[in-house]
Amino acid sequence: MPTRPPARMPEKMSPDRALLDQLLDDKTVLAHVAFVDDDGNPAALPTLVARLDDSILVHGSTGSRWMRRIASGVDVAVSVAVVDGVVVARSAFESSLVYTSAVLFGSFTPVAEAEREPALNAMTERLIPGRVDEVRPSTKRELAATMILQMPIRQWSLRTSDNWPEDPADDVTGPAWAGQLRFGAPSVDVYPAPDLRDGIEPPPSISQVRGVR
Amino acid sequence: MPTRPPARMPEKMSPDRALLDQLLDDKTVLAHVAFVDDDGNPAALPTLVARLDDSILVHGSTGSRWMRRIASGVDVAVSVAVVDGVVVARSAFESSLVYTSAVLFGSFTPVAEAEREPALNAMTERLIPGRVDEVRPSTKRELAATMILQMPIRQWSLRTSDNWPEDPADDVTGPAWAGQLRFGAPSVDVYPAPDLRDGIEPPPSISQVRGVR
Repeated sequence: MPTRPPARMPEKMSPDRALLDQLLDDKTVLAHVAFVDDDGNPAALPTLVARLDDSILVHGSTGSRWMRRIASGVDVAVSVAVVDGVVVARSAFESSLVYTSAVLFGSFTPVAEAEREPALNAMTERLIPGRVDEVRPSTKRELAATMILQMPIRQWSLRTSDNWPEDPADDVTGPAWAGQLRFGAPSVDVYPAPDLRDGIEPPPSISQVRGVR
Repeated sequence: MPTRPPARMPEKMSPDRALLDQLLDDKTVLAHVAFVDDDGNPAALPTLVARLDDSILVHGSTGSRWMRRIASGVDVAVSVAVVDGVVVARSAFESSLVYTSAVLFGSFTPVAEAEREPALNAMTERLIPGRVDEVRPSTKRELAATMILQMPIRQWSLRTSDNWPEDPADDVTGPAWAGQLRFGAPSVDVYPAPDLRDGIEPPPSISQVRGVR
């Protein structure tokens, strides 16, 4: 439940958890983790994000300095956004984006040992649903080399905008066009690896994958 | 020129300004501005970004508290990223993203009075090239209601990854598929506004627009 003070909730703000989940599950795989570095300066880490139940997950190499900083439990603001189109008004001023964006507040903790494999699987499935069942399980060495962090979904500011243009009357009677541009899912092209052995066709997960943003 | 210490430059880091410009000009219109709020906590503002020469531009309402914070000249880290595909390896562990991401460091200042109109035009043109010549100029009142900020492109950390999977020999001889998924530009659907007057067809800027991410 969003619990930030009103100053953080502009007019398009929505407390709708279902909308937040849709943004995380269907609309984008990218998050930008904002934090304060150990020198007091702001820093940001763009990274893959996936939701698992009431948490968001990020992962990376155990050797990443920024991942280690985030893993130390510092406060973070996690920004996710997707542009779904453009509100094309009769003036530049009234034109705007069709978008959904959210900033989640909290801090990350390492995923508990027993939950690491399901959490990593959730990240793989976010990109390529069905892929986990097609590949071998991760080895202990691979699991040990991966840092996976979770943050509970507790505080967020979500904004969404999807309107027709609202032009003043003088502009509506003028010559300019107005409407909306809507962007679809990216197309997907599939390329086999140069070292793929003969006779191995793309499995269902690959044939059915949707483009992500 | 990137001037951050080596700890901020992981192995895929590239100092290539041309690649950074391509990311900003062709690949994404979204930036996530990380900063430290006046309570000392990290905050992030997802927003439209455009490049104009050696600066990046962001804009928003003069009534936005977060825009005002950023306009005050605090240090920021501006994160931009795009996912161009997936490196599908024969294991989950070796799989990864095809991506370009950058974090730019510095601080924003308000665009000087004489440069405000060209800067706002650059933001409109980033979304819909050619649109500025099709609509009336902004009024003084509209310009006064808009905050537009610039940050010189001086320090950044840019990372790019675009590889074939690098599976261990045991996996290459196994049954799993491997390759790359590549995502194309989003499709664009055009919808006229309900109050569009009869006989006004989409102008060239709209007919030719490309989907943005």
